[in-house]
Amino acid sequence: MITILMGSKSDVEVAKKACSILKDFEIPFEVRVAPAHRTPELVENIVKNSKSKVFIAIAGLAAHLPGVVASMTTKPVIAVPVESKMDGLDALLSSVQMPPGIPVACVGIDRGENAAILAVQMLSTSDENLSKKLAEFREKQKEKVISDDSEVSKMF
Amino acid sequence: MITILMGSKSDVEVAKKACSILKDFEIPFEVRVAPAHRTPELVENIVKNSKSKVFIAIAGLAAHLPGVVASMTTKPVIAVPVESKMDGLDALLSSVQMPPGIPVACVGIDRGENAAILAVQMLSTSDENLSKKLAEFREKQKEKVISDDSEVSKMF
Amino acid sequence: MITILMGSKSDVEVAKKACSILKDFEIPFEVRVAPAHRTPELVENIVKNSKSKVFIAIAGLAAHLPGVVASMTTKPVIAVPVESKMDGLDALLSSVQMPPGIPVACVGIDRGENAAILAVQMLSTSDENLSKKLAEFREKQKEKVISDDSEVSKMF
Amino acid sequence: MITILMGSKSDVEVAKKACSILKDFEIPFEVRVAPAHRTPELVENIVKNSKSKVFIAIAGLAAHLPGVVASMTTKPVIAVPVESKMDGLDALLSSVQMPPGIPVACVGIDRGENAAILAVQMLSTSDENLSKKLAEFREKQKEKVISDDSEVSKMF
Amino acid sequence: MITILMGSKSDVEVAKKACSILKDFEIPFEVRVAPAHRTPELVENIVKNSKSKVFIAIAGLAAHLPGVVASMTTKPVIAVPVESKMDGLDALLSSVQMPPGIPVACVGIDRGENAAILAVQMLSTSDENLSKKLAEFREKQKEKVISDDSEVSKMF
Amino acid sequence: MITILMGSKSDVEVAKKACSILKDFEIPFEVRVAPAHRTPELVENIVKNSKSKVFIAIAGLAAHLPGVVASMTTKPVIAVPVESKMDGLDALLSSVQMPPGIPVACVGIDRGENAAILAVQMLSTSDENLSKKLAEFREKQKEKVISDDSEVSKMF
Amino acid sequence: MITILMGSKSDVEVAKKACSILKDFEIPFEVRVAPAHRTPELVENIVKNSKSKVFIAIAGLAAHLPGVVASMTTKPVIAVPVESKMDGLDALLSSVQMPPGIPVACVGIDRGENAAILAVQMLSTSDENLSKKLAEFREKQKEKVISDDSEVSKMF
Amino acid sequence: MITILMGSKSDVEVAKKACSILKDFEIPFEVRVAPAHRTPELVENIVKNSKSKVFIAIAGLAAHLPGVVASMTTKPVIAVPVESKMDGLDALLSSVQMPPGIPVACVGIDRGENAAILAVQMLSTSDENLSKKLAEFREKQKEKVISDDSEVSKMF
Repeated sequence: MITILMGSKSDVEVAKKACSILKDFEIPFEVRVAPAHRTPELVENIVKNSKSKVFIAIAGLAAHLPGVVASMTTKPVIAVPVESKMDGLDALLSSVQMPPGIPVACVGIDRGENAAILAVQMLSTSDENLSKKLAEFREKQKEKVISDDSEVSKMF
Repeated sequence: MITILMGSKSDVEVAKKACSILKDFEIPFEVRVAPAHRTPELVENIVKNSKSKVFIAIAGLAAHLPGVVASMTTKPVIAVPVESKMDGLDALLSSVQMPPGIPVACVGIDRGENAAILAVQMLSTSDENLSKKLAEFREKQKEKVISDDSEVSKMF
Repeated sequence: MITILMGSKSDVEVAKKACSILKDFEIPFEVRVAPAHRTPELVENIVKNSKSKVFIAIAGLAAHLPGVVASMTTKPVIAVPVESKMDGLDALLSSVQMPPGIPVACVGIDRGENAAILAVQMLSTSDENLSKKLAEFREKQKEKVISDDSEVSKMF
Repeated sequence: MITILMGSKSDVEVAKKACSILKDFEIPFEVRVAPAHRTPELVENIVKNSKSKVFIAIAGLAAHLPGVVASMTTKPVIAVPVESKMDGLDALLSSVQMPPGIPVACVGIDRGENAAILAVQMLSTSDENLSKKLAEFREKQKEKVISDDSEVSKMF
Repeated sequence: MITILMGSKSDVEVAKKACSILKDFEIPFEVRVAPAHRTPELVENIVKNSKSKVFIAIAGLAAHLPGVVASMTTKPVIAVPVESKMDGLDALLSSVQMPPGIPVACVGIDRGENAAILAVQMLSTSDENLSKKLAEFREKQKEKVISDDSEVSKMF
Repeated sequence: MITILMGSKSDVEVAKKACSILKDFEIPFEVRVAPAHRTPELVENIVKNSKSKVFIAIAGLAAHLPGVVASMTTKPVIAVPVESKMDGLDALLSSVQMPPGIPVACVGIDRGENAAILAVQMLSTSDENLSKKLAEFREKQKEKVISDDSEVSKMF
Repeated sequence: MITILMGSKSDVEVAKKACSILKDFEIPFEVRVAPAHRTPELVENIVKNSKSKVFIAIAGLAAHLPGVVASMTTKPVIAVPVESKMDGLDALLSSVQMPPGIPVACVGIDRGENAAILAVQMLSTSDENLSKKLAEFREKQKEKVISDDSEVSKMF
Repeated sequence: MITILMGSKSDVEVAKKACSILKDFEIPFEVRVAPAHRTPELVENIVKNSKSKVFIAIAGLAAHLPGVVASMTTKPVIAVPVESKMDGLDALLSSVQMPPGIPVACVGIDRGENAAILAVQMLSTSDENLSKKLAEFREKQKEKVISDDSEVSKMF
């Protein structure tokens, strides 16, 4: 089980990229809107009652959600900074520059799919089946590239 | 009463600048070390039990403390971003770029004294005596400048 | 009474966000166009004759308006940096990096609504009624989140 | 087992912070110098023959090492960007902005200790014992804060 | 012979600018899609089996492709950072800030045509004919400017 | 006559670089400490009563002084942004990004000497004698380079 | 007489803003397309044969044109950095960060009108008539603001 | 033959890194101080009379030297941006963001050694002997890493 929290309903497109991956890997998940500043109790309620092994927190601007979630659990928390102002630099720095003792695993700006793949990789450290699926997933990525390469190299 | 929270004991030099101002204005204050991520309960405990009219939150890196305090009170929260990495840009953006609905009043990087003056200004909106003291304080600043100007203009 | 100054007529959309909040809180306000560089006398005229307890200054580019207003009053001045060039970084740094002695309370880029909420918070330090309204306002924000959360969590 | 790779011998101080944590948690680890560009075969040799469940890659400048390791394994890869030029912005962006499909879990600049804690958190998703140790570790962090808070609050 | 590699099919417009120049100079080239992270073996396969005298690597985000190619050959590698997020700053720093020992020749963001001209300049160090063509090419650029200058100076 | 204003006594080293040039060109000048925010009346007093043909304003942080001076005169105002925080980026953007209608002539960070040379160039537009001196000055710069070149080229 | 040089025909919109001002002030001018890198001889030809008292150089990207013009004349050179990539940061830094000895007077990004006003201000140091016109011009700006202020303050 | 130009005598430490490499590869070179703005004729004189096959231009601040050299030759020009202000960002952008038609091959900030290696790589496109030496050079780099790796892995 994986819990995806987002700081605002407007982050839903980034969340969808994560969900699509988790469905492919047949990993159960829930998606919640739980902004860190407007509803700290809701965040706490979700995180502390969750059985999830990994949390994904998606937020823009002064993106405190990943850090706030990390302060409430010792499970790994993956941060997805969202571009809203300043090309996403504000969200990136707010997410990644966590102080010593409370890490967050930050992926690239708007990279919901990578957050999900990283979550699967974490779970795969104790799940042979997921490791196999990850290997297959990567193989498919390669096939897609080979096909793109074939198409493009003929264009010139 | 004003509560000064800092994210780490290492922020104490910035806090001292604030305290020095508050002493000048004879405003009672408390100073607490209460990092947002390591001790969220401590932050909540301090903020929710406080009678303070204004909070000052001093923090570096992914400076979530001001925003976290702001999520727990409707009193004004003043943020002082601290330079630690990246010339303080990480702390500045993490402090100032708050989402709609939960503002924080951000001052300049390492500007503990300005946070305190701003707090006094806020209290002065309903306190004639503080307004007078602020006018006197500004007058003294001007005298210092006049003296500097006199000294420097003679150098050349 | 709150005075909202903007550096250019083109900042009016950001000002509207502030006005909408102030109307909700039934706080009287005036809105003025008073650029710091083109009309310094107008700014001085407005600020020095004002009975307002808080000033909100909205400006883009080399946003000097908040600092200039702050140099003319000891009342709190809230700065709203406006995005015009460079993702608003120029306006943000011009607003927030004030020298020691003359603070400005900076909110996020284009965050007119947060400037107004912060102004209300400042006034609430001596107004029980406003404190209650702020608590209700925050409660409504939470309800909106709960509704969004309910809607989004069903999407997946 | 965890493998720590660094891009240059000069990154050893950051690596030590990670090792210190891993020793505390009694997790076996190896430390290797394996720059991505000078010795791609060495990196491949280490990664492909490793039984490690998690990789930590520490690098500065155009920090390609984390991404290169991630391209060779489906196990989670944690990136530690190192400050060398440009306040570490070059290493941060080179580490975190990975393309879709190949994530890296980026922590803050020079945050070796956080990389190790994150690695432990990943392993704890299937290891109750590590979960307990993480809870104890966090408890100790809190005690340290309480002690700092007590010391600082008496200073003023 | 010149080999153009791109990190993603979406970089094709930048590649076209390079190809157009190479055709003008009648230099044979191949164009390949070979992302560094998804298909490291494909990159190695292309680079190690190539007879090309110069490589052009086009990539966005954490643009590792130029550095990865440079680690596999001692022939010159030209990097073209592509704007995708953050105005291309991520790709620029990931491309240009290579560690000592493994240089990459970086051109401006999205400057496919300049990568190709630079490649021709490299080949011209031992090819009189190409030197002449470069001189003619520059002459034509000047003529175009003279024509633009004539047109514009009449507008006012 | 040229008036040099600085935002703080601490800017005096940058001012000295300007004065040294003005002495070489035998142009009379005055140097004043007149911060824009602490002493707006002093700035106004100096600028409005001055017979100076050019103003040089030296300031760091949110450097409003050049813009404030420019709002009080139609004579040219040269801005020298001073490095204090953020590598001087705050002072640079606060100085240069002036709104339409009120320009400031910005030189490089800490470049007091260039501000003075630029002032001389402005005066030289109507002073043949200064034009000659500028030509001689540049000739001396060249001689210094020739000497450096001779020294360095022998080192290798 | 004022000479306006632009680095590319595509900078013409910025040049038009300058021309419009110069026409208002009845100052003769010429507009030329003369890129620094493609046509260094053309730039030299224009600058060295010009009787202009001030040069305005408009350029984007690695904007070398202002500096190159400044190296060829001791008359004042005004730089207008143009936004093309990176929000104009590249053009701004390339224009303003001139080395000691060869200043350039930089205005804000895309601020063609301010370059022209600054040029007029320079000429006004020896031309009473221009000083009067500048005062009138500023008066009109104020009237426009008063009108905007009147319009906006009635909106709320 | 390779010509190394530097914008200021203060760049000599970066130049030494380049010279050391060129000596190792037994490639003749000359080192010249020739700032683009102070001595444009000297630069032209050096470049136009040179028989060098590659130019290396080292400069800080608004680093125009590489671009100016590139405008005078069709031989490849390698730029080394030097850190002086702003962490070298000004020099990097001034060097790398060249307009279409006139490329410069930019290496990392202060990377004199990489400029020299890149120059050797360019010459190696038509010189088998240099190719062999480059392969040996890279082999030695690897041996150094293996030794570092051995030393470091024993430390833990």
